[in-house]
Amino acid sequence: MEAATAASPLIKVVALCGSLRKASFNRGLLRAATEISRQSINGLQIEQVDISVLPMINTDLEVDGTFPPVVEAFRQKILDADCYLFASPEYNYSVTPPLKNAIDWASRPPNVWADKAAAIISAGGSFGGALGQRHLRQIGVFLDLHFINQPEFFVKAFEPPAKFDADGNLIDEASTKRLKEVLLALKAFTLRLKGKC
Amino acid sequence: MEAATAASPLIKVVALCGSLRKASFNRGLLRAATEISRQSINGLQIEQVDISVLPMINTDLEVDGTFPPVVEAFRQKILDADCYLFASPEYNYSVTPPLKNAIDWASRPPNVWADKAAAIISAGGSFGGALGQRHLRQIGVFLDLHFINQPEFFVKAFEPPAKFDADGNLIDEASTKRLKEVLLALKAFTLRLKGKC
Amino acid sequence: MEAATAASPLIKVVALCGSLRKASFNRGLLRAATEISRQSINGLQIEQVDISVLPMINTDLEVDGTFPPVVEAFRQKILDADCYLFASPEYNYSVTPPLKNAIDWASRPPNVWADKAAAIISAGGSFGGALGQRHLRQIGVFLDLHFINQPEFFVKAFEPPAKFDADGNLIDEASTKRLKEVLLALKAFTLRLKGKC
Amino acid sequence: MEAATAASPLIKVVALCGSLRKASFNRGLLRAATEISRQSINGLQIEQVDISVLPMINTDLEVDGTFPPVVEAFRQKILDADCYLFASPEYNYSVTPPLKNAIDWASRPPNVWADKAAAIISAGGSFGGALGQRHLRQIGVFLDLHFINQPEFFVKAFEPPAKFDADGNLIDEASTKRLKEVLLALKAFTLRLKGKC
Repeated sequence: MEAATAASPLIKVVALCGSLRKASFNRGLLRAATEISRQSINGLQIEQVDISVLPMINTDLEVDGTFPPVVEAFRQKILDADCYLFASPEYNYSVTPPLKNAIDWASRPPNVWADKAAAIISAGGSFGGALGQRHLRQIGVFLDLHFINQPEFFVKAFEPPAKFDADGNLIDEASTKRLKEVLLALKAFTLRLKGKC
Repeated sequence: MEAATAASPLIKVVALCGSLRKASFNRGLLRAATEISRQSINGLQIEQVDISVLPMINTDLEVDGTFPPVVEAFRQKILDADCYLFASPEYNYSVTPPLKNAIDWASRPPNVWADKAAAIISAGGSFGGALGQRHLRQIGVFLDLHFINQPEFFVKAFEPPAKFDADGNLIDEASTKRLKEVLLALKAFTLRLKGKC
Repeated sequence: MEAATAASPLIKVVALCGSLRKASFNRGLLRAATEISRQSINGLQIEQVDISVLPMINTDLEVDGTFPPVVEAFRQKILDADCYLFASPEYNYSVTPPLKNAIDWASRPPNVWADKAAAIISAGGSFGGALGQRHLRQIGVFLDLHFINQPEFFVKAFEPPAKFDADGNLIDEASTKRLKEVLLALKAFTLRLKGKC
Repeated sequence: MEAATAASPLIKVVALCGSLRKASFNRGLLRAATEISRQSINGLQIEQVDISVLPMINTDLEVDGTFPPVVEAFRQKILDADCYLFASPEYNYSVTPPLKNAIDWASRPPNVWADKAAAIISAGGSFGGALGQRHLRQIGVFLDLHFINQPEFFVKAFEPPAKFDADGNLIDEASTKRLKEVLLALKAFTLRLKGKC
């Protein structure tokens, strides 16, 4: 057991929530992912990074090749990660402004996203965020992110049975099971891209 | 002349620039559009509305059905317009965070964009913003915007000959001519949708 | 009454089914649309045009500026229509090959789709065709089609209650009601664009 | 030398041309890719597979779980490949009907594309095929293809200097150099995904 643990590299996942709302379902998905990872996935460590502190992007804020301190700190987090987990709500068929803002700051030269694995999870109305995920994947081409293809993950949050409790915690068993599959796929793809599978 | 002027309704265009940069080429496009409209298009009035004052979207900021004052003021401008002109830079193959932020605030119920005509203009590298425009058009379906299809407008800002001067003013004749065609098409489509053509 | 009927122009809708399957649900949607139109919408005439006869597109088949006879006949139908109704299944998140083939043939210069209104309806798994509809709308920009934005129409064909009978006929009341709303919106938008509303 | 050759696994690339035209620029790109690969890339074998023989997709043609013979043969080619090279012209901002047809046939259960690397190259007007490539990438998510992100490859075929000769052969040096970079990236990503880099 010990030997196996030692041999297994620790995968650092940086998780971003695209909504700034306190009771956001998508934030609830990240809490569930963190809990699943702690309880039942060996070697996967999820850290949620706060993107609400970032200023609205304006490259006039870059002075002599340096970014505002909160932006520098955020970029360092992105650079240090092994892969990414985006909890991406859909606003008007696309990604949210705070998420795009975080993405764009970290893409400024040198782009610190490059050549990492990523996965997207969403909760929302009608299509559960499926249309916004298309935009995020297209954005990822320029960032040079490698998204897992399967399984895709959408929670149709307003269809019965209830998927979240009043505090925005994921309570749906089928969604929880699928979420674990996403995390396992992200772990496997990250290791595969690193040549360690 | 007077009779003709009296008969022609004034079209109020609200123009939004997706970049917050002072020297933004896309802001330069809006200056050029305003100038063209003043000098040579009868009955089209372009007002650029500042979106840099809007807070990052977070619906927790909506209290008892009211928006923060700057958001309310912005929504009123959008509601009062006859049509829209988006100067939309492309960041990572999609729209910019400040533009998406403005769009999303004005889409909160009741959606104040609905059933109006719109046009998109862009300046940028490689494709001149063509990929970001795809996202904006898809977003517009949910907003219920009616975009003109032709002519599409992209300025490949870094290909010779020079398209902008050092202050970000449009100096390219072919682009200026095409920009006028966009404005005429926007005017015609707005009138057509209003049943006044 | 007679005067009103006389004043109301007849709207000719050309309807295309993106699937060649006999029992296609999307073909069933077109049958339902035709029936609804006959029974309860004044002045809207739907004609389904067969696209299975068209050869796979290859512009080497255009000789001296003429198209193969079946292509010419199809293009004439498109040209004569007042607007279009696409029953568009989703294959691998996009439109079907036979539908794209029909679209491309009719877009060859001179593009015979230009400046007409259109609506899209779909039945399918998971998102009911919503992702494929995004592609069709993007294609429509180049064709210069004006799609209605609202209501959008998707039938999640495999979710209970049953939406179609064994012969592929639409039997779901809510979907039928919404389909009528699509047809009314298409009629209204067509008239509006013609300046006759 | 011999040892190195023996150690390097042979990568089988199946290449598909989305145009059926004899003088297609995109077919010219595949000829150039094949030549580059033969002359200067060790261990990469490109085989162009003809998609013009496939019938227009109609799942009524599948009888007792078997496909028409030409479809079966095509599916076997796809299954046997290590990775894919799509020469994808843009028709009306999307992929071509023959290419989508080939893709859809090979995606029928069991999907024979799954979990392979892929690259896209295009030649065309205005954006050189960049918009159509967005659609192909989105389609690839459902197929479970892993596209290389960098470098992207577009030839703006009608901008000076001349990119192709009268027979549709690539004659532009910068494009040829970039095409080689695409092939090297495809080779490297294929090996990486196989755990052999």
